Amino acid sequence: MLQINPDRLWQSLMDLACIGATDKGGVRRLTLTDVDRQGRDLFVRWCGDAGMAVAVDGIGNIFGRRAGTGEDALPVAMGSHLDSQPSGGKFDGAYGVMAGLEIVRTLNDAGIRTRAPIEVAAWTNEEGSRFVPTMMGSGVYAGVYELDYALAQTDVDGISVREALKSTGYAGAAIPHALGAYFEAHIEQGPVLEQTKTTIGVVLGALGQRWFDVAIAGQDAHAGPTPMETRKDALLAASRLVIEVNRIATTFPDYARGTVGFMQVKPNSRNVVPGEVRMTVDFRNAKDATLASMVEELQRCVARIAADCRVEIGIKEVVYFPPSEFAPDLVESVRTGSEKFGYSHRDIVSGAAHDAVYMARIAPTAMVFVPCEGGISHNEFENARPEDLAAGCNVLLHAVLGRAGAA
Amino acid sequence: MLQINPDRLWQSLMDLACIGATDKGGVRRLTLTDVDRQGRDLFVRWCGDAGMAVAVDGIGNIFGRRAGTGEDALPVAMGSHLDSQPSGGKFDGAYGVMAGLEIVRTLNDAGIRTRAPIEVAAWTNEEGSRFVPTMMGSGVYAGVYELDYALAQTDVDGISVREALKSTGYAGAAIPHALGAYFEAHIEQGPVLEQTKTTIGVVLGALGQRWFDVAIAGQDAHAGPTPMETRKDALLAASRLVIEVNRIATTFPDYARGTVGFMQVKPNSRNVVPGEVRMTVDFRNAKDATLASMVEELQRCVARIAADCRVEIGIKEVVYFPPSEFAPDLVESVRTGSEKFGYSHRDIVSGAAHDAVYMARIAPTAMVFVPCEGGISHNEFENARPEDLAAGCNVLLHAVLGRAGAA
Repeated sequence: MLQINPDRLWQSLMDLACIGATDKGGVRRLTLTDVDRQGRDLFVRWCGDAGMAVAVDGIGNIFGRRAGTGEDALPVAMGSHLDSQPSGGKFDGAYGVMAGLEIVRTLNDAGIRTRAPIEVAAWTNEEGSRFVPTMMGSGVYAGVYELDYALAQTDVDGISVREALKSTGYAGAAIPHALGAYFEAHIEQGPVLEQTKTTIGVVLGALGQRWFDVAIAGQDAHAGPTPMETRKDALLAASRLVIEVNRIATTFPDYARGTVGFMQVKPNSRNVVPGEVRMTVDFRNAKDATLASMVEELQRCVARIAADCRVEIGIKEVVYFPPSEFAPDLVESVRTGSEKFGYSHRDIVSGAAHDAVYMARIAPTAMVFVPCEGGISHNEFENARPEDLAAGCNVLLHAVLGRAGAA
Repeated sequence: MLQINPDRLWQSLMDLACIGATDKGGVRRLTLTDVDRQGRDLFVRWCGDAGMAVAVDGIGNIFGRRAGTGEDALPVAMGSHLDSQPSGGKFDGAYGVMAGLEIVRTLNDAGIRTRAPIEVAAWTNEEGSRFVPTMMGSGVYAGVYELDYALAQTDVDGISVREALKSTGYAGAAIPHALGAYFEAHIEQGPVLEQTKTTIGVVLGALGQRWFDVAIAGQDAHAGPTPMETRKDALLAASRLVIEVNRIATTFPDYARGTVGFMQVKPNSRNVVPGEVRMTVDFRNAKDATLASMVEELQRCVARIAADCRVEIGIKEVVYFPPSEFAPDLVESVRTGSEKFGYSHRDIVSGAAHDAVYMARIAPTAMVFVPCEGGISHNEFENARPEDLAAGCNVLLHAVLGRAGAA
């Protein structure tokens, strides 16, 4: 049974991680900086070494293409991103691109031809750390954003994406093309696989997201002379809301998640009853209808808490990102691939968004998750085991081969 | 029936409020600054005009003394403070001192002699805004702080109390002396009297205070990929604690109050489960035993929440200030004084600390509260009605007369 070369995959990841390496063993490779250019250049060189034709589109997405034998067959693509968070790790994004490269190298070594062409994509600016929005390259490719809109975005120094593409030499002209399928391998960025001692996460889709800003207006009052029953304590109201957000997320079905990650209290003095709180709510769910029910329940809680605590609560939706369901046949190919190798596997949904979420809008899509240490990512201590990375790559290999078809 | 001169009392307050007046109608008269010196100088001049002998002790407390006829009778003192918060009001502190002065003027006008001497005290640095600790002058007088310790305290510019006393000319040498009684008139600084349309608050004592710093350590995690059941959400734990603090304060007797006024969340990012929260707890109660029970209940809650949320919670007591009970006979004289004038009155406890709290440790003590607008103080919009201030002063006059005795 065909297998990838685990050592070569690992070595490619480690070589790539030298570019923008940080003292603590992480990576700082912000989109379209000079270190990102070095990473891109290395990937392009490796694509050429593997006999692939390289194309770059208008937003700087890089496509390495291994020809197929079927003239009209749409390419089967794999990919992810090479940019990192400011204090990022070696695997988030890089793994999906290097896994695609390793698969092409494996096919080359084995002299295997496929009917459909195989492509390896490196999407521009997935992280959104230097330029907003996140998942910019796949978003433009999938038609979520206009190219001109994306090119006009600027970083904190006022440098636009257009300028950064030019200065790094990645302002390409390739035209987006239809894909027969898209696969993305990625570290889980969560604790489930590790905690359940599972090697492969069969990703069913990605959670939808609805984000809210909440502003609570009560009244400042002296903690000493103000009796409890006359208070309008904005922090008490906020605390009740935090508990409701967690109750909703733990009682609703379909992978419901709810988080209050941000809270700011005013005047924030130990002997003053807080008159003002600003906070956020992040709701996620695999089903849009359930997500909507969570929001309705949140609004009921807001009304009740406002009345109980005699405060005003304003709530504003700032992000709405519908759930994404991956292609059942591709998902099934990930599952059967895991079984073929005897890897433990479990169905999972991605709590975070990935380039695959946008690609799912224009092509049949699936993802392969592998465990990462402690579920930690977006952190220099991000880590993954070579054997897990290899396993994910093997599953991806067979899923891609199945889709691309024998020559 | 002898009454004070309401217009003269009001005018004295308004004249004093010109010193350090702010644009918004408040007062900024920080301890031992030049404006505080001007306020002190005016008070000293007014004491002299009223025939009082003036003495200043080592911490700068000013005592105006009207002689009594009884050679051995201990003085009956009234007072409060002339310093203000950075953005303070016209009445907090100033009212207690001006009320004492008005009573001496009233006795002078009526040609009334008393057996015991009558003193009007202006205590140094009650607010603690420039120098810490608060209630410094009365604290030194009552033996809570050593004089040398207080003199060595410095402001943000490194200027010591000792230097500030010298530069303002208020480094005195008078020896603290025993008092037969101490009365303090003050605005309520809370909403109870106004909301219940009551003119006089008969103050039974001051709430004890126990303050805590709380540190909650959970674990940062991505809001998306981290299932609810694996989280260690420090903000969820903090929110549950806020609710328990409020539950304890609303269910325990004896004027229980509980406030979380300060909360700081880390990393405070909308899509990251918070790994760390720092917060405070401020508990107050009229009875020390009940205050202790509140703290025990808090500790039980902390243990339960830490276990439920799988976080670590550290709790450290940073202030302990026992409840203060005023002298029953003096309190009764305030109550009967209110009735004599037909003023509405109700028993109340002071939620905040005052100079009277320290004085109660060395002399029979009572306080008279009058309403303030909206319960607001420590604010330039602090306000009180002339008729209420006059009523409080009348009640004080008769309480003092009763205690000082006829000549």
